[in-house]
Amino acid sequence: MARKTRMIDSSLAHQEAPEGRLASKTTIITGAAGNLGSVISRRFAREGARVIMAGRSHERMEAAREAVIADTGAPAGRVQAAVFGGGDPDSVRAALARVAEQFIRIDVLVNNAGSAGPKQPIENVPLTREEMAACGDTETVPDAMRNILGVTWNTARIAASYMPVGGAIVNVSTIFSHEQYYGRAPYVMPKAALNAFSRQLASELGQRGIRVNNIFPGPIESERIRTVFAAMDKLQGNRDGETAAFFLSKMTLKRAIDADDPRPRADTLPTPMDIANACLFLGSDEAGGLNGVELDVTHGMIVKKDDHSTFMTRPSMRSFDGVGMCVLILAGEDWRDAMEIARIQIDCGARVLLGMTRQADVDQARARAGPEHRPEPGRRAADPDRARQDGGASSGLFGRARPHQQRLRPAGEATQSLCRIPARRGRRHRERVHGCRARRRHGGRAHAQPVLEVPR
Amino acid sequence: MARKTRMIDSSLAHQEAPEGRLASKTTIITGAAGNLGSVISRRFAREGARVIMAGRSHERMEAAREAVIADTGAPAGRVQAAVFGGGDPDSVRAALARVAEQFIRIDVLVNNAGSAGPKQPIENVPLTREEMAACGDTETVPDAMRNILGVTWNTARIAASYMPVGGAIVNVSTIFSHEQYYGRAPYVMPKAALNAFSRQLASELGQRGIRVNNIFPGPIESERIRTVFAAMDKLQGNRDGETAAFFLSKMTLKRAIDADDPRPRADTLPTPMDIANACLFLGSDEAGGLNGVELDVTHGMIVKKDDHSTFMTRPSMRSFDGVGMCVLILAGEDWRDAMEIARIQIDCGARVLLGMTRQADVDQARARAGPEHRPEPGRRAADPDRARQDGGASSGLFGRARPHQQRLRPAGEATQSLCRIPARRGRRHRERVHGCRARRRHGGRAHAQPVLEVPR
Repeated sequence: MARKTRMIDSSLAHQEAPEGRLASKTTIITGAAGNLGSVISRRFAREGARVIMAGRSHERMEAAREAVIADTGAPAGRVQAAVFGGGDPDSVRAALARVAEQFIRIDVLVNNAGSAGPKQPIENVPLTREEMAACGDTETVPDAMRNILGVTWNTARIAASYMPVGGAIVNVSTIFSHEQYYGRAPYVMPKAALNAFSRQLASELGQRGIRVNNIFPGPIESERIRTVFAAMDKLQGNRDGETAAFFLSKMTLKRAIDADDPRPRADTLPTPMDIANACLFLGSDEAGGLNGVELDVTHGMIVKKDDHSTFMTRPSMRSFDGVGMCVLILAGEDWRDAMEIARIQIDCGARVLLGMTRQADVDQARARAGPEHRPEPGRRAADPDRARQDGGASSGLFGRARPHQQRLRPAGEATQSLCRIPARRGRRHRERVHGCRARRRHGGRAHAQPVLEVPR
Repeated sequence: MARKTRMIDSSLAHQEAPEGRLASKTTIITGAAGNLGSVISRRFAREGARVIMAGRSHERMEAAREAVIADTGAPAGRVQAAVFGGGDPDSVRAALARVAEQFIRIDVLVNNAGSAGPKQPIENVPLTREEMAACGDTETVPDAMRNILGVTWNTARIAASYMPVGGAIVNVSTIFSHEQYYGRAPYVMPKAALNAFSRQLASELGQRGIRVNNIFPGPIESERIRTVFAAMDKLQGNRDGETAAFFLSKMTLKRAIDADDPRPRADTLPTPMDIANACLFLGSDEAGGLNGVELDVTHGMIVKKDDHSTFMTRPSMRSFDGVGMCVLILAGEDWRDAMEIARIQIDCGARVLLGMTRQADVDQARARAGPEHRPEPGRRAADPDRARQDGGASSGLFGRARPHQQRLRPAGEATQSLCRIPARRGRRHRERVHGCRARRRHGGRAHAQPVLEVPR
């Protein structure tokens, strides 16, 4: 199902020997008609690159291309448009084959394309077309995955086959993959996956001499970001400007924006040109020693980086005091593994709710759990029938699912998540702590049994 | 005790309007006569900067300056030398005041200066002059702290007072602050402190519009790195080339180094020019949106980044099963706090050895500990007299210090470290695990009591 693929203006573009930091390099910028993409395209054109502006709409790309030529004075042959659907392998293959036919190789790919994803609080994020229609959004989660991660993956792997030693891929992620971004989980999640993809790509392509680096823009100065922040304020019921103020407060850099007024201002954001300059640096030979780098362009936002922590453990270690906790384990198909996890949690004093996809599995698991894992006399007895009613296909072994949980538990899908659901603060919190103390003093299980609650 | 301070060639340097990415910027490069410093100076001179080459030796700086002028063709007035001792506030103040007198302001500071520190396995690293003489090294740990961290701190704070909004500080750290680097703890440690300093500096100076960013060079292609690796091989008793091979194996990027041979090679290292290009990018206005960035120039070495992990806790939580562990707490002056930590560890079943600086504190602590924290009948009894003999000024409360530990415990210094010393594997490990299981089964403390061991 190859989409229509074509290159606009394929006249050869070797009229003059260009100067600049990307002179004689063939560069592809995806999403090149957008706000950021068109600034990157201009920056690259001014540094002597052959610029292939990529996007989905023929008309938009042609207009964007003409604007770049007019603004930069670059020869028309050095700025071209490529129209393809990034998520469609055939479409990308055909378009990049034409680029390579013309220019032999691709030196730099800037993966800038991406969509915004649906904008909803987590409970309302549409997973299906039906849910999307119901909430009036324009993308589902799978759409966002494809438009943000899939397009990058697909374009990168096909472009890489045309890249020489010394070639460079620059991915444009977002600092929000390391930061809270209310109502935008479907945007943040594929960007976080893109970060992992960039690291893998750097390792694999680095072996062939192709560098892959990743930019983390902060919120970028534009009309759009003001709209985004305003929407977030509305979604959360904030005062106007609260979201913007929060992100500005995380930026350590105050910046002067006006040559006539050198005072540092607290209300500035990084600009599209900042991102374009970072793309230029990472795309050029000046970054020839950089691979797998994650470069923040955020006015110094302080964020928690991706990293794993090392937790020393031993097979028999009681890692947590689980008294007063209820642990929901979404076992999916792998319920035998989940039983092991459940046992450890139960040993720690926690109550466990196991979610499974089939009633037959529930029965088998319950039989296997054995009497020592049945609720103790002091505990609320599990009621399999009520659990079955509440949980649909899933069932509770050691507790009873409440309506709130149903939203958290995808029915009929294999999942591996382990959710720790603390009892809520206040009276129940005190009960939990008290229960915990009681256990330690008496060396046995506590008698306080807080009711299962989902976090507020 | 102001050292001799002077500027060489103070003729005004406004002959022509220079072009380039640092045109009309006044830049200071410390350690400018060194391998890296002289490459950075050349790079900056070629981009139109006024380059102040800073270092300690008059003759060396003058020679380095002349070489830069000869190589780059920069007007003599645009390349100057400043002679000062970076660790001496008066010396730096006097030198930078002269720079500011001439050029009004300082736009960019590259903190490149630093020494190598003593090169010894951890037990032999000289803390004092006497130890230095004994092991034949040329620096102590305090020397390295001053030469690496102190010089940077001192120069940065004084230069900052001459920096305008839009000014930039570029610190040159090392990727080895995130990586093992055998026998070089005294080099790695002040560099790690420099990383923390850079982050603080970015936050504080960012408020005034001054950007601070930090470069993490990998091992840099040079004669010197070959010598360093060879010395590490010798120090560890490795085969020749083992250290180099190890670091090369961590680099994800293979790179072609010869225009005539485009094959990616696995034996290349980042070059001084790579670092100079990174300094140029971060020093120029192109990085105007970057603050607090840590930029690896390492051929994509995969390292563990500085980060903290978040460990959810509650006041009464038993976070670890400590049965079979002995915890050495170096309490120093703050032994009352240490007692709290000790109590938590003891509650987890661990044995605790508390190190204090005064016998009077030991007596007071022992009295305060109360009978419930005294060793249990099944445990090896603490022998205060033997502990006093073994530990010098420090004493054991719940165990007995062994000769091995004395080296780990600085006598008479206030320390806050908490060392977890696992019993060693094998028989004792099994005892420990068994003990843990026994405790869980019987709901009480285990009876297995492994002897205290320091890790091998």
